[in-house]
Amino acid sequence: MLKAAGNLVPVTSVPLYAQIKENLRARILDGTYAPHSQMPSEHELCAMFGVSRITVRQALGDLQKEGLLFKLHGKGTFVSKPKAFQNISSLQGFAEAMSSMGYEIVNQLRSFRNVSANRQVADRLRIEEGAPVIEIHRVRLLNREPISLELTWLPEALGQRLANADLVARDIFLILENDCGVPLGHADIAIDAILADDEMVDALRVEEGSPALRIDRLTHDANGTPIDYEHLYFRGDAFQYRFRIDREKQGKGATSQATRKA
Amino acid sequence: MLKAAGNLVPVTSVPLYAQIKENLRARILDGTYAPHSQMPSEHELCAMFGVSRITVRQALGDLQKEGLLFKLHGKGTFVSKPKAFQNISSLQGFAEAMSSMGYEIVNQLRSFRNVSANRQVADRLRIEEGAPVIEIHRVRLLNREPISLELTWLPEALGQRLANADLVARDIFLILENDCGVPLGHADIAIDAILADDEMVDALRVEEGSPALRIDRLTHDANGTPIDYEHLYFRGDAFQYRFRIDREKQGKGATSQATRKA
Repeated sequence: MLKAAGNLVPVTSVPLYAQIKENLRARILDGTYAPHSQMPSEHELCAMFGVSRITVRQALGDLQKEGLLFKLHGKGTFVSKPKAFQNISSLQGFAEAMSSMGYEIVNQLRSFRNVSANRQVADRLRIEEGAPVIEIHRVRLLNREPISLELTWLPEALGQRLANADLVARDIFLILENDCGVPLGHADIAIDAILADDEMVDALRVEEGSPALRIDRLTHDANGTPIDYEHLYFRGDAFQYRFRIDREKQGKGATSQATRKA
Repeated sequence: MLKAAGNLVPVTSVPLYAQIKENLRARILDGTYAPHSQMPSEHELCAMFGVSRITVRQALGDLQKEGLLFKLHGKGTFVSKPKAFQNISSLQGFAEAMSSMGYEIVNQLRSFRNVSANRQVADRLRIEEGAPVIEIHRVRLLNREPISLELTWLPEALGQRLANADLVARDIFLILENDCGVPLGHADIAIDAILADDEMVDALRVEEGSPALRIDRLTHDANGTPIDYEHLYFRGDAFQYRFRIDREKQGKGATSQATRKA
């Protein structure tokens, strides 16, 4: 039953491979095909759906791009583990957020350096370009598997106070609040999707060309001064951000009223 | 000046290509290299930084993966346009959010169909598996360029009321509120990064293997009943979500107090 609004838009029926993809995705998500179990062979799927091998391969290929399936050479196709997710209803460090859900979080410290702020870092931290900042590179391990690469810049005076802190076991947020006595306020966050770069490939043991969720986060203290600028790179196949958002009506009542009358 | 905390973690200095990448990224973001302008040639960059062509290529390659640069065969390397971003402080339709920032939003309707709910859709909309639902596939155009592919499922009774609505020019959220009289409440959102699948390649004119931001959104009416389930796929090279998040202290005062004393 096809239906189009207007006549400038083409109406396409859903191709066969997309229907099969949808069917298999639903069975993976509801646990019929369990994490780490082997999927039926291409031959079995052809018989099951009554379609060609090309169609089955296209469906499996798309589910692999989505991260729901992975292939082992010579062994077949397997179901990925469900993605870990972080609820971001309030500003929290990664360990703080994840350990309350039963995950074990440990960090690898890749580097802790005194560098000159480039223009982007200086602009965000509201300091002079070239001013000294502390730059920290860490890998976060979730249940002992690398899940994100985190680059952090702090103004020098504050950053130096982290030099002897336990950056392997503790969140920077909690060190700032509990050791440095700097209460945190809000963060401005921007999220996009990129492909893994060389440092991610090295640090997170992902393949080149893997998808990554990139978070640009500028954290302010309780007075609104920016104190902690970060680039967080999460493995696309292993992580999800979740949150709830409300419809707010400030000033919109009048508009929707007018629309209804028109 | 290198500094490491603890002795179980390796400390690496930042490789040359990464320093060059950082330098070029800052100049792109601050407008020194303007959108759509041509970058200096590899030869010129080698001379500028005093490094080998391999090093320059690695830096340019990473900036291309990030979406900041693109290549035109035989012409050279160019600076990408800045990404469009959507502020998500409240639940809004895409046109509602973006047109207030001066963007023109139009939709292509790819399909409007009556289908049986698969298990995932049924589960989210709290209906029986196999129950009839309306499935809508749209492409959103931002200033006449495709930016996202949106798949929407609505319970049949509600969805049928959209059959004659102007889905090319209007957000589904505004049609639900203004035409159907269904006030919206909140949405549960999950965000991750994947690679473009076949429908995205076709609908958004991106290359296979491009990064995509995937949004899974379940919108509820003001009574908390789920009424609109969506998969939104945004082009990774062209779009960003932005929001502000506050540090909340409910019940945490005691813990941080205890930690400070320990």
